[in-house]
Amino acid sequence: MMKGSLLYEGKAKRVYRTDQNDRLILSYKNDATAFNGKKKDQFEGKGRLNNLITSKVFDYLKLHQIDSHFIEALNDTEQLVKQTTIIPLEVVVRNVAAGSITRRLGIEEKTRFTPPIIELFYKEDALDDPLINDVHAYHLTDITEDELTHIKQMALNINEHLIQLFEESDLQLVDFKLEFGRLKDGTIVLADEISPDTCRLWDINSGEKMDKDVFRENIGDLISTYETILQRLEENTCAK
Amino acid sequence: MMKGSLLYEGKAKRVYRTDQNDRLILSYKNDATAFNGKKKDQFEGKGRLNNLITSKVFDYLKLHQIDSHFIEALNDTEQLVKQTTIIPLEVVVRNVAAGSITRRLGIEEKTRFTPPIIELFYKEDALDDPLINDVHAYHLTDITEDELTHIKQMALNINEHLIQLFEESDLQLVDFKLEFGRLKDGTIVLADEISPDTCRLWDINSGEKMDKDVFRENIGDLISTYETILQRLEENTCAK
Repeated sequence: MMKGSLLYEGKAKRVYRTDQNDRLILSYKNDATAFNGKKKDQFEGKGRLNNLITSKVFDYLKLHQIDSHFIEALNDTEQLVKQTTIIPLEVVVRNVAAGSITRRLGIEEKTRFTPPIIELFYKEDALDDPLINDVHAYHLTDITEDELTHIKQMALNINEHLIQLFEESDLQLVDFKLEFGRLKDGTIVLADEISPDTCRLWDINSGEKMDKDVFRENIGDLISTYETILQRLEENTCAK
Repeated sequence: MMKGSLLYEGKAKRVYRTDQNDRLILSYKNDATAFNGKKKDQFEGKGRLNNLITSKVFDYLKLHQIDSHFIEALNDTEQLVKQTTIIPLEVVVRNVAAGSITRRLGIEEKTRFTPPIIELFYKEDALDDPLINDVHAYHLTDITEDELTHIKQMALNINEHLIQLFEESDLQLVDFKLEFGRLKDGTIVLADEISPDTCRLWDINSGEKMDKDVFRENIGDLISTYETILQRLEENTCAK
């Protein structure tokens, strides 16, 4: 597999072409951004951690029959993925209230959502990724009603598996963001990453925040926090 | 019918008890507010116009089998209504892009929505009436999934009738906001008002704005604009 030219650079990853036209290489950067890019920093080793954590998570989901664009980790910071056209939606699943929803809707932090709340945001930096409803999604993207129903079912299914995975690592899955993409044949699969950049994870015993909120709120060391997540996932998956 | 004590005062109306415990009197104020109360003014005669316009519209909807809380106009500024418990949702129906949706989602003004877009906002001044999705509505209010489906169907049905009503008065119905309330027995009915304060209406021939945007954007005389709406509705309904 030959790494080709840069196709796209996002906030957290670079996307490269390969010598196969349906395969891409994702290269995880050390950049951290929050508040839609208003807060920025660099953390040596962050790209490696998010690449390895995402790879573990996508492997685990694959074991449970959830397909994603992920094929394999190539090295510490890069992974091989199937080429998809990303649907410009952020699909957020919330098990417990934290972050923006507490301020936006006046809901107290730690309120449990049963069933979980799914939120859609329109991925558009210039608009600050606004919250949208289903009908907006049909208007702003090419997805159909049936496809959105399917995406929501996938998101809830993924939530069940991730709750389990993280619980085995003594982590509470508070909320997380998913992105989906279309393969060449139009099939929608899970894409992007699943890491402490895209999930809120609280230590089950201490309640300590172990995700990007450490960076957002300046309450700890990002690298050692993410390293702990990776170690716990490794211990957990190796013990089986 | 005896007017009783003040039950509630909103931005545009006062609500009074009556000597019957399932009847209230709505008294329309001359106050105009915009941008969630950040812009305020008073217009002599506005209360009368919104009371009479709302009464005409609710009478028209009743003719088309759409029940509301409205019973009858009592005088120039007051109407008798059935007592309801207002569901804290603003149900917005958009036929054409204008106002907040153009800024929020980057959609060009005058874009037609076919089918119309329904948006829900959580009625909570302290939060600036945020946009919400269906699942938020189940969490924040007492409505069920079936009831929300019913409310949306009513909103689309009301839209069809209002498009017709205003078209006969040479007005294009761009968008409007509805509120619903529960009668004592739990039945959900249309409530609040339908007036140029809650609808965007554009002159079909000139495209001129003939609603509260005149006040929001300082582009004309609110009272003469609302007076024209009332006159057109009166000519239209009298001609039948």
